[in-house]
Amino acid sequence: MTNQTLEISSPVGLIAAGGVMPFAVADSLIARGLTPVLFALKGACDPVAVERFRHHWISVGQIGRAMKLFRSENCRDLVFIGTLVRPALSEIRLDWGTLRVVGPVLAAFRGGDDHLLSGIGRIFEKDGFRMVGIRDVAPDVLMPAGCLTRTLPDDIAAADIAKGRDVLRALSPFDIGQAAIVIDGHVVAVEDIEGTDGLLARVARLRSEGRIRAKAPRGVLVKAPKSSQDLRFDLPTVGPRTVEGAVKAGLAGIAIVAGNTIVVEPQAMIEAADAAGVFLTGLPA
Amino acid sequence: MTNQTLEISSPVGLIAAGGVMPFAVADSLIARGLTPVLFALKGACDPVAVERFRHHWISVGQIGRAMKLFRSENCRDLVFIGTLVRPALSEIRLDWGTLRVVGPVLAAFRGGDDHLLSGIGRIFEKDGFRMVGIRDVAPDVLMPAGCLTRTLPDDIAAADIAKGRDVLRALSPFDIGQAAIVIDGHVVAVEDIEGTDGLLARVARLRSEGRIRAKAPRGVLVKAPKSSQDLRFDLPTVGPRTVEGAVKAGLAGIAIVAGNTIVVEPQAMIEAADAAGVFLTGLPA
Repeated sequence: MTNQTLEISSPVGLIAAGGVMPFAVADSLIARGLTPVLFALKGACDPVAVERFRHHWISVGQIGRAMKLFRSENCRDLVFIGTLVRPALSEIRLDWGTLRVVGPVLAAFRGGDDHLLSGIGRIFEKDGFRMVGIRDVAPDVLMPAGCLTRTLPDDIAAADIAKGRDVLRALSPFDIGQAAIVIDGHVVAVEDIEGTDGLLARVARLRSEGRIRAKAPRGVLVKAPKSSQDLRFDLPTVGPRTVEGAVKAGLAGIAIVAGNTIVVEPQAMIEAADAAGVFLTGLPA
Repeated sequence: MTNQTLEISSPVGLIAAGGVMPFAVADSLIARGLTPVLFALKGACDPVAVERFRHHWISVGQIGRAMKLFRSENCRDLVFIGTLVRPALSEIRLDWGTLRVVGPVLAAFRGGDDHLLSGIGRIFEKDGFRMVGIRDVAPDVLMPAGCLTRTLPDDIAAADIAKGRDVLRALSPFDIGQAAIVIDGHVVAVEDIEGTDGLLARVARLRSEGRIRAKAPRGVLVKAPKSSQDLRFDLPTVGPRTVEGAVKAGLAGIAIVAGNTIVVEPQAMIEAADAAGVFLTGLPA
C-alpha cells in the first residue's frame, strides 16, 4: 500500500460485485476523464445498473476467461469493488475446478477469504495486470479527514476516540475488530463478522436492556479499517444507515479513520447526522 | 496477586452477593476446617440459602457498619464472592453518602466498577483487613489445568486455542475480551459486556444465519480472564450452561485458563460435555 498517487492506466477494469459502489466508482472515473469497463460478477452485480456502462459478465470461477476479457479491453489496472457474499471455502474447492491447479491460491485457502482474494489478485498480477485500490482510482468516494458535521466531538468523545483507536490497534494482527464502540472510556463492544450495523444494533440492545447506564447521547463508534483491505471486495462502508444505527445505540458520534472506508451517499449521511446532532469525523490515518 | 498459598486467617469473612457461589465457597472452607462468616449483601444474597451459615446482613453503602461487624466476628481475611448487578455510578453517587467523603473511592469512580470495588477493598485494607481471592480460600471451586473430558482437543482445536489466547492477550489492556471464539483460525467474536453466555448465543445466531460456514462441531470458546479479577464480585463463571451454549454455537470445545474462573456444578458440566462430545480443557496459566 502506498499513499502516493498512482498513474492510473485508462480504461480501468472494475471487477464489480454487488451494491451501488461499482457504479459510484465508475461515475467518479468518468468525471475525471477516465474510462471504466465493468467486469460484472454473475449473481452479485446489479444487472440493471450495469447497463449504463461498458461491461462484460464473468463468473467467479472463470479466471482464465476473465483475464482474456481484461486484455481484449486493454485494461491494465484492475479494482475489486462491491459486496460479495462468498461461497463457503468447501464449495469453492468443489466448484472452482480451475483453481485446483493453481498452487498459490490453494495455499491461500487456509488464510481465509481475504487471502483467497489476494491470491487471485496475485494471479492477475503474475499475468501482467495491476491490482489497484479505490483510493487510487476514486479517492473521492472514501472517508475524508476532518469533521463533516456541525456537531463536533467534545473532550469526552475525544478520549473515547483515542481509546477506540488503541483497542483497534491492539486487534490489528487479528481478523476481527475493524470497529469498536467506546462509552466513557469503556470499550463496550468490538465489531465481529456481523459488521458495523450489527455492532451498533448490539449496543442499542444492550442500552435498551439497561446494560449500558451512561445517559445517551454518549460514546463513539470508532472505525479503523485495515489499510490492506482496499484491494478486495467488501470494503468497509458507511452511510446514512450508520448514522441511524449510531443514534439508536445512543452514541454521541462516529469517528472513522480517513481513507479505506467508502462513504455511500455522503450528503445524505451528513444531513442525517446534523439532524440527529451526532458528529461524524474523519481521523488522520 | 500471588500464586503462593496464603496463610488464611479463620474465621474468613465472605462478603456475599448473589448466586450459589458464596455457599459453595463457604462449604469448601468448612470442608477444610476453616470457619466462614457471611456478610450478606441486601438485595443480592439469597436469604434462604444463607440461613445455613453464620451471617449478618449489610448494605452496599454501610462501609463503617460492615467493618464493625468484620471486627466483632474477628474476621481478618475478606473475600468478595457472588454476582452483583451494580447500580449506575450516578446512583451510587447519590445514595452512598458515606462514600462522598472518601477521596480514593471517588477518584476510583472514573475507572469504572472494578476500580470502585478495589477502592472499597483498599479502604478495608487501610483499616487492617486483608482482601483475599477465591484462589486463596477455596481453590477447589476454580477451573483446574488439564482436559476434564473424554473428548480431547485435536490439532485444529489446538491452533484455535493458541489464536484465541493471542487475541485475548492483545486485548488485556482493555476492559473487554475475557473470552473469544475462534473457528478454523478465524477470531469470530470477542466477549463484551454481554458475557460468555451472550457471546455463545451470538455465535449460535451467526451460525444459524449461515454467516459461519465451517461445519459444526468446529471452533473453540477460549476464556482467559484477567488474573486481577479474583478480588471482586462477578468472577468469571462457567457451568453446564456454558456447555449448552457451546453446543448450540456448534463448537468443538471449551478451553479455559486454569484459575480465576469459577466452575459451577463441575460434575454436571463435565457430564454434559461428555454427553455432547465436546472437550473442556484447562490451559496452563
